[in-house]
Amino acid sequence: MKVSLLTIGTEIITGEILNTNVQWLSDRLESLGLEIVHHLTVPDQWDHMLKALDYISTSDVLVLTGGLGPTRDDLTRDVVAKWAGKDLEFSDSSWQSLVEKLATRGRTPKGSHKRQCFFPVGCHILPNSVGTANGFELKTSKHQLIVLPGPPKELKPMWTDHVEPRLPKGTLTPWVKWQIYRLPESEVAERFELVLSEFRDLEGVEIGYRASPPVIHVKMRKNLIPDGFEDRIQKEFSANWKASE
Amino acid sequence: MKVSLLTIGTEIITGEILNTNVQWLSDRLESLGLEIVHHLTVPDQWDHMLKALDYISTSDVLVLTGGLGPTRDDLTRDVVAKWAGKDLEFSDSSWQSLVEKLATRGRTPKGSHKRQCFFPVGCHILPNSVGTANGFELKTSKHQLIVLPGPPKELKPMWTDHVEPRLPKGTLTPWVKWQIYRLPESEVAERFELVLSEFRDLEGVEIGYRASPPVIHVKMRKNLIPDGFEDRIQKEFSANWKASE
Repeated sequence: MKVSLLTIGTEIITGEILNTNVQWLSDRLESLGLEIVHHLTVPDQWDHMLKALDYISTSDVLVLTGGLGPTRDDLTRDVVAKWAGKDLEFSDSSWQSLVEKLATRGRTPKGSHKRQCFFPVGCHILPNSVGTANGFELKTSKHQLIVLPGPPKELKPMWTDHVEPRLPKGTLTPWVKWQIYRLPESEVAERFELVLSEFRDLEGVEIGYRASPPVIHVKMRKNLIPDGFEDRIQKEFSANWKASE
Repeated sequence: MKVSLLTIGTEIITGEILNTNVQWLSDRLESLGLEIVHHLTVPDQWDHMLKALDYISTSDVLVLTGGLGPTRDDLTRDVVAKWAGKDLEFSDSSWQSLVEKLATRGRTPKGSHKRQCFFPVGCHILPNSVGTANGFELKTSKHQLIVLPGPPKELKPMWTDHVEPRLPKGTLTPWVKWQIYRLPESEVAERFELVLSEFRDLEGVEIGYRASPPVIHVKMRKNLIPDGFEDRIQKEFSANWKASE
């Protein structure tokens, strides 16, 4: 079960703001055992958005964030509907809750807010308790699309409350992580793989190394780790083992 | 002149670390007037990396970061050579400087360091004054590929010192930015575009809005702004104008 994250927004592409959403979402998806294969950001431009959807369509779950606002640079709902071959229809219930939400702030809705109440036919609306743009889930024959607004304080509660319960069960096992101190990455890798080769053929084994001196981070998926390997690694690197957190 | 950024690394895809490089690089590229159209991250996997290069190949300049280390999950140099149809050749000068660099740290090179001294035939090597992995620039008939290591403290000086002087001249004009206070985004957009329509047809005009309450950020490319428009906007929003920084 593969997942791709598509972030839509010129403000991210131009470096104006840092894309913290993808890290947060990836961390949540990882904890659900889902495999993330793309983080992609494109500007608020129709053609780039359509091509981005084509590119990530090798994944099963497509998570889109951004571009659901009331302004003319917000194209996400239109692009998604076009790409999925769906019409947009007005949601009376979204409109009612938007009118009520604005009323509590002493505001009346404007014409541009109506845009935020159109959704692809057949989708499931994901309520936004903070902002004015609801999200939606759209299932096609091949994909589950999750479409959410970009502001983190809106996206995060929507994700936790409304998206996670709708996601498929992931099958990836968690990472087992090691931290080795005061050794160069090349030496850690060499000794690590020498130990692993005592247990199994190295072909096809995915090991991740990340150097953040004086620490080298090493990780492997739990299901790929042979019995006894962890103890052996701890002995091998005992002089460079992390004593405590 | 379009630019795409491709970040390679399972540690980013899984949410383990935050991708700050793309924001920093985008900010630099923007200041050079270059148009960025993709930020893409894929895991350290051969097929995903090859397909990513195909996808971003609509751009002229492809900037790749990550995956140049000495360990078995570092595939970038091999994938780039394969994609560009080039062989890899050993760089004696890179090897010499690596040996000297390690010597100053009291270390001797290991076999895995040799991997870091192979480069696609015909490329220009970009020296790394901080770490052990040099980068490279590879020109093909259609693309300028810039390949750099992932750690920010290595990447940033390499970019500033060695990459920027090799980049084409950008033609995009800078953004003009406004900050409007204490008004909802929908109202700012409506009034902003009403004023703009006094000056020109709105068709095809790119305006970016970003709500960060209590501020709405609005921006337009300088060359698209009609004479007199900025003064008119300042009058329109004078009550909500930013008084000082």
